[in-house]
Amino acid sequence: MRICDKLPQGVDAAIISDEKNRQYLTGVRSSAGTVVVTRDETYLIIDFRYIEMARQTAVDCQVLLQGRLYQQIGELFAAHGVKTWGLCDSLTDLAQLRRYQKQLPGAFLEDSGVDGLLQQLRMCKSEVELGFIRQAQQLTDDCFSYITQRIAAGRSERDIALDMEFYIRRQGAQGVSFDFIVVSGENSSKPHGVPGERLVQPGDFITMDFGCTVGGYCSDMTRTVAVGQVTDEQRQVYDIVLQANRLGVQLAGPGVACDWVDAQVRALIADAGYGECFGHGLGHGVGLDIHEEPAFSPSCGTLTRPGMVITVEPGIYLPGRFGVRIEDMVVITRDGCTDITRSPKELLAL
Amino acid sequence: MRICDKLPQGVDAAIISDEKNRQYLTGVRSSAGTVVVTRDETYLIIDFRYIEMARQTAVDCQVLLQGRLYQQIGELFAAHGVKTWGLCDSLTDLAQLRRYQKQLPGAFLEDSGVDGLLQQLRMCKSEVELGFIRQAQQLTDDCFSYITQRIAAGRSERDIALDMEFYIRRQGAQGVSFDFIVVSGENSSKPHGVPGERLVQPGDFITMDFGCTVGGYCSDMTRTVAVGQVTDEQRQVYDIVLQANRLGVQLAGPGVACDWVDAQVRALIADAGYGECFGHGLGHGVGLDIHEEPAFSPSCGTLTRPGMVITVEPGIYLPGRFGVRIEDMVVITRDGCTDITRSPKELLAL
Ligand SMILES: [Mn+2]
Ligand SMILES: [Mn+2]
Repeated sequence: MRICDKLPQGVDAAIISDEKNRQYLTGVRSSAGTVVVTRDETYLIIDFRYIEMARQTAVDCQVLLQGRLYQQIGELFAAHGVKTWGLCDSLTDLAQLRRYQKQLPGAFLEDSGVDGLLQQLRMCKSEVELGFIRQAQQLTDDCFSYITQRIAAGRSERDIALDMEFYIRRQGAQGVSFDFIVVSGENSSKPHGVPGERLVQPGDFITMDFGCTVGGYCSDMTRTVAVGQVTDEQRQVYDIVLQANRLGVQLAGPGVACDWVDAQVRALIADAGYGECFGHGLGHGVGLDIHEEPAFSPSCGTLTRPGMVITVEPGIYLPGRFGVRIEDMVVITRDGCTDITRSPKELLAL
Repeated sequence: MRICDKLPQGVDAAIISDEKNRQYLTGVRSSAGTVVVTRDETYLIIDFRYIEMARQTAVDCQVLLQGRLYQQIGELFAAHGVKTWGLCDSLTDLAQLRRYQKQLPGAFLEDSGVDGLLQQLRMCKSEVELGFIRQAQQLTDDCFSYITQRIAAGRSERDIALDMEFYIRRQGAQGVSFDFIVVSGENSSKPHGVPGERLVQPGDFITMDFGCTVGGYCSDMTRTVAVGQVTDEQRQVYDIVLQANRLGVQLAGPGVACDWVDAQVRALIADAGYGECFGHGLGHGVGLDIHEEPAFSPSCGTLTRPGMVITVEPGIYLPGRFGVRIEDMVVITRDGCTDITRSPKELLAL
């Protein structure tokens, strides 16, 4: 990603050292390395373990073999006349900053806007990025179809969660996006419950929230399924959440305010009488991070743009009784959106 | 852990917000919360999700339900006459610091020594901590015995690594200490290689470096095994590493300098003619973090004390050919050490 001409006003250079932003700016995946962005050129300084790979895969930057790091950065600063520099304030610890300040020339700018710039840039995904996200979601859909054939009364939540994770990793996922949520029966009323020893019973709803990474990029989906017969009330709540999910996907097009989408779906749930039972935002951006900008939430006024990847995940939770959540990932396009979650959403009774 | 009377001079209070130090100081395991240490009392401020659990499990601290966090911290500061405060500089990002500084009274002390204090305290483990580490190591030993029955020519490194991880997690490990290293044949010469698609072949050495977590505490072990017949040279290198490992375990007693232990073992390997082939430190502390203080390394002059848990992991790596590493964890005792890694160390030919 060419970022040189986008540096915030007054900032001559940015130092980026976290793994995800480093990958975003250079295309290189490594556990170490430092990116230096000046107004003319972006540099990736990387050690001998990665240098060969980096030279082959780096995009939009010059790759330098790491020697005496601070001296190297200082030389780049001198070559490009850098007088002021900033970094990602939310991703840099004080001890690291102190090392930079002690050893680098020029003035450090606190709150330089580099953090926000990267968040902004990362919101709209390139075709390459979308490719990874789609691959990750494909594995996630496969995992859902795998596990729906294996869920049965008597299995524990934890056992099901491990089965799902091991399947998805055997299929080639690089890792999981987050610890899988598998909650059943009364536990399904906890939006972020941890899979435990509870055994699945007939009449349970089971909510599974899961995803994996491919090429560093995340997927994220949620389905609630029924084990055997469920009550009319369970079915009714499910239908409301399904309608809410469909409305969210329908409204997710380019040029709409994120908080407006959230509000419309929230209103549908409230009109159905469950306004108090939907205690989280409608969705969040997904990319190199599982939660990134923008969010379909009451506090996000961002206007959607093509290339954004956002989840639509309404839920209704009845404490101590049961809960339902249905989550898809959509890619905003020029004339609407593409729902890249392909698993069925109609209530499955297993 | 009662820390109030140990705060560095001139520091009236410390704010600790990272997960591991929070657990260390309070015994409470949660994904969120803030510890405030004053000269009189330690407080854990924690939200409604964890409050019940925290009230039941907290040790050496007062538990407070989180409301308006900064206001609460400010009130504690006022109640205890706090004029200066510090935090863990290596674990706090600039954006977080700015929020503290904007909303809290008193003077922030950079480089206050709180970081180092916690590192110091955490070096010597309590019986409770040792209990978790022993449990984690027991699962790790079980995993070794499981996988030695299943390693065979034709399986890929990645397949073996997944098999090991899935076994250890099914057995009840909370998680893994780090991504397992399984490297075979010429890959075994890479100390930190990543398990790949290479298929194990007769005559290979396979090095497995792995560990798991129980109660938040890590284990860590390495074994190199042979697949079928190996050469005399391989056997000879193995024997040197085994001798080096045994010497390290033998020398690891109380009151010795960490760098001296490293030097003795390094000398043994050098005397055997492989001085250039042992490019990392002899060992590292293990606890809530997989790498913590102190280290058996050339740059660590710390004197060992009872309760320290340190690895002994000499290795010899012949680039492009093969490598051997044997790693045990020892607990320093009053009159020597206990090697808590129970797996055999003699060369296994599978
Ligand atoms: Mn989600
Ligand atoms: Mn180790």
